Amino acid sequence: MTATAADLDRTVDDVARRATAASTPLAQAAPAVRADALRRAAAALGDHADELVALAQAETGLAETRLRGELTRTRVQLRLFAQVVTEGSYLDVRLDEADPDFVLGPRPDLRRTLWPVGPVLNFAASNFPFAFSVAGGDTAAALAVGCPVIVKAHPGHPRLSERVAGLVGAALVEAGLPEGTLQLVAAQDAGVALLDHPAVRAAAFTGSQRVGQLLAARAAARPTPIPFFGELGSVNPVLVTEAALRERADTLLAGYVASVSGSAGQLCTKPGFLLVPEGTAYDAAVVAAAADVPEHRLLNPAIADGYERRVAQALGADGVRVVHAGTLRRDDDEQGWVTPTVAAVSLDDLRAAGPTLLDEVFGPFSVIVEYPAGTDLADVVAELFPGNLTVTLHLGAHEADADRAALVARLGGHAGRVLLGGWPTGVAVTPAMQHGGPWPATTTDGTSVGTAAVGRFLRGVTYQDAPQELLPPPLRDDNPWDVPRTVSPRGASQQW
Amino acid sequence: MTATAADLDRTVDDVARRATAASTPLAQAAPAVRADALRRAAAALGDHADELVALAQAETGLAETRLRGELTRTRVQLRLFAQVVTEGSYLDVRLDEADPDFVLGPRPDLRRTLWPVGPVLNFAASNFPFAFSVAGGDTAAALAVGCPVIVKAHPGHPRLSERVAGLVGAALVEAGLPEGTLQLVAAQDAGVALLDHPAVRAAAFTGSQRVGQLLAARAAARPTPIPFFGELGSVNPVLVTEAALRERADTLLAGYVASVSGSAGQLCTKPGFLLVPEGTAYDAAVVAAAADVPEHRLLNPAIADGYERRVAQALGADGVRVVHAGTLRRDDDEQGWVTPTVAAVSLDDLRAAGPTLLDEVFGPFSVIVEYPAGTDLADVVAELFPGNLTVTLHLGAHEADADRAALVARLGGHAGRVLLGGWPTGVAVTPAMQHGGPWPATTTDGTSVGTAAVGRFLRGVTYQDAPQELLPPPLRDDNPWDVPRTVSPRGASQQW
Repeated sequence: MTATAADLDRTVDDVARRATAASTPLAQAAPAVRADALRRAAAALGDHADELVALAQAETGLAETRLRGELTRTRVQLRLFAQVVTEGSYLDVRLDEADPDFVLGPRPDLRRTLWPVGPVLNFAASNFPFAFSVAGGDTAAALAVGCPVIVKAHPGHPRLSERVAGLVGAALVEAGLPEGTLQLVAAQDAGVALLDHPAVRAAAFTGSQRVGQLLAARAAARPTPIPFFGELGSVNPVLVTEAALRERADTLLAGYVASVSGSAGQLCTKPGFLLVPEGTAYDAAVVAAAADVPEHRLLNPAIADGYERRVAQALGADGVRVVHAGTLRRDDDEQGWVTPTVAAVSLDDLRAAGPTLLDEVFGPFSVIVEYPAGTDLADVVAELFPGNLTVTLHLGAHEADADRAALVARLGGHAGRVLLGGWPTGVAVTPAMQHGGPWPATTTDGTSVGTAAVGRFLRGVTYQDAPQELLPPPLRDDNPWDVPRTVSPRGASQQW
Repeated sequence: MTATAADLDRTVDDVARRATAASTPLAQAAPAVRADALRRAAAALGDHADELVALAQAETGLAETRLRGELTRTRVQLRLFAQVVTEGSYLDVRLDEADPDFVLGPRPDLRRTLWPVGPVLNFAASNFPFAFSVAGGDTAAALAVGCPVIVKAHPGHPRLSERVAGLVGAALVEAGLPEGTLQLVAAQDAGVALLDHPAVRAAAFTGSQRVGQLLAARAAARPTPIPFFGELGSVNPVLVTEAALRERADTLLAGYVASVSGSAGQLCTKPGFLLVPEGTAYDAAVVAAAADVPEHRLLNPAIADGYERRVAQALGADGVRVVHAGTLRRDDDEQGWVTPTVAAVSLDDLRAAGPTLLDEVFGPFSVIVEYPAGTDLADVVAELFPGNLTVTLHLGAHEADADRAALVARLGGHAGRVLLGGWPTGVAVTPAMQHGGPWPATTTDGTSVGTAAVGRFLRGVTYQDAPQELLPPPLRDDNPWDVPRTVSPRGASQQW
């Protein structure tokens, strides 16, 4: 083993040991303590907002307004998870009273709670340097339920990652959480070694389908496999009916271009396809809207390279026509600066092109697909867009009928979120959000946005006939954490 | 392609198509209809109890009393899941009111429910011909939430499987559920082909670690991976303190032998190891209890072969001593008839033997492990028994102290159920049961016994700004299914 490999092993083992040591005290920390820690973390980010936004701008090229909004979102979601912890229903506590007359013979005292899985490895994303990075949603969800978190920093914003980890880590420890609650590693090989490490019990990832599939396979091939929650590719089709276009074509097409080009199209919910009836006149409105979009910097040179390659592939497919030709300019640092490109294709040519055209293009590129009259849009989604974070349907004012209800029900089988009107970009952080969908949108069912995200980092444990003194707090008779609980009283089974 | 291969493909495609066709109507069937169907299925089994038990006896060799109890359990769990459906909290419905003053900018109307994943493939187990087979827990849980089920019959009880599928399938259709709600396939290659089929959206399995790992890897390697809920090996260690033995050695050792030999040891929760302090005198009590156990037939010749091989391996490990030598006799049909075998080993020799001794032995075999004074039992479990369905701790009357609370907390990290006293065999079917634990006990977190089992067959879907007419029933304002719902009112985010 080389000196470097030995160093890596030492670092990885040390990080893993610290996370393991933090596991039990963190799991047992009272909800009030964990909630206070999350709020302090949010406050620390707020206290250093100017510095952090400036760092993020320099490293990612994202606009200041966008970054300020994202930082606010990140603070809000930390506070939202603090509420989840305090409220306690996420533990899904179930108490079965001992029942000598249970219908299947005497039943012992059974008490079940969900409990943190243990150390979570979080691969940070490039496109949300706050909200899906060191102190982002995955970290907040895991910490909330009591899992130590090891973040593999994204190389696109290393200094920001260090600074956020420093500020948040200190706030957590000040609040009384153990050292080792939040750790950061930078090297790619450290991230991979940690994914293999027995101490790590779950992993979260936001990024490309290619890398996500590699890491998911690796997590599954461990001697002790672990759940891998990867958010991978999504093209977020938007379906428009003839009636919707008749009523509001200009608004729709302007909204489409705005949704495609926001954050330079580097959003997991960017609409990659707009499906409109054959014969729709859209060129003028698209060109007018796209021409107004200023040049934006892509996140890093590698994303610019990928964008350039994928756009060229897509535009090279048979039957593809350019509606608005955007630009890609390289500056002296190899960074890419872009304006949006919109293409068009018939449904048949899209089908014939396959993955060349159907796979996600990360950046401000989108394709308008013309479908023939009488097309069953649910069939199209099932065939060409079977797994997405979102699918959006724009209907006319009088189309909410039984046929459309059947269509919407089928769309729900292919996406985590179904929008009736509006645009999929701009994901609300809130209890009813689902950000995750059938493969390849996510590797495993579960959401990475909203309060339901905590479910990914929990597992059920039942205690049978345990004395009060040996139970975890949420299962004790005196319910010291004051969590909601569902009780199955003795005698109830006689009614089954 | 040979004629046989073409036939297989046709059968598989036909089964898959029927399951797919059933998906939407089944998901949309009112809870009252699904609950009624489950109750009718339970009634159909009850109406034919004598016939079914006789079939099961002939095919499995299990005792009539045991089979009658198991059939009752199977009927009870169908009715229990009917209650779960009607009550509706499993849908975890969350409604976020549209909120123009939301802290992160205007929030749309968001409504999230859990929804059936679609067709579920259920590989039936051999050891519970009713409760983990055609109409068993996995089938009941999947049907309850609205997933069509395809059962791969276990070859150990083919006629029983056919009969149960016929009776239950007819009851479900009579109740108004679609044809294709429950289907049965018998051929092993049909089961494997269905696991690969795009129509299948999740799989459940109860069986050996070897087969489970193969199938889990196959499910993960599909072009569209699906969740695979496998319940594999578990050795269910039972830890006994010196004080517990001092207080009640005879009861403990008799209870141990009874738990090891019930159902001829062919239970996933059979205690494979009993850990006692060095110097404990256990031989006489174990021999006395084991000598009283009558000969039982193993489920089938293949299990007898495996049992014979594994017992020989285990007894051949260094330092292993036979405490009670059981028998294995073959009859004219190659069936194996057994009495229990109990061995003993020191902790050091167990560690040295590794998988030869540590891996599950399916049948009435168990090992008493002598641990030195001062041993940290949580360390032993972490090292040698890291993932199990259950771990049991027998304490003395005055040992429920802080040290033991720390021990119990650590045990909870390695098992789905922690018992304080008692025996892990005999799993209550009830809301607070967790039957699933860290790898290799189960492939994926989740329980296959108790009402929480439904969670494996659901995924989240959010509807954004949908008109009432297009929402699934549990999300409509008038709540026609009358399910519990959590509402986030407008304005609430101001307090975050």
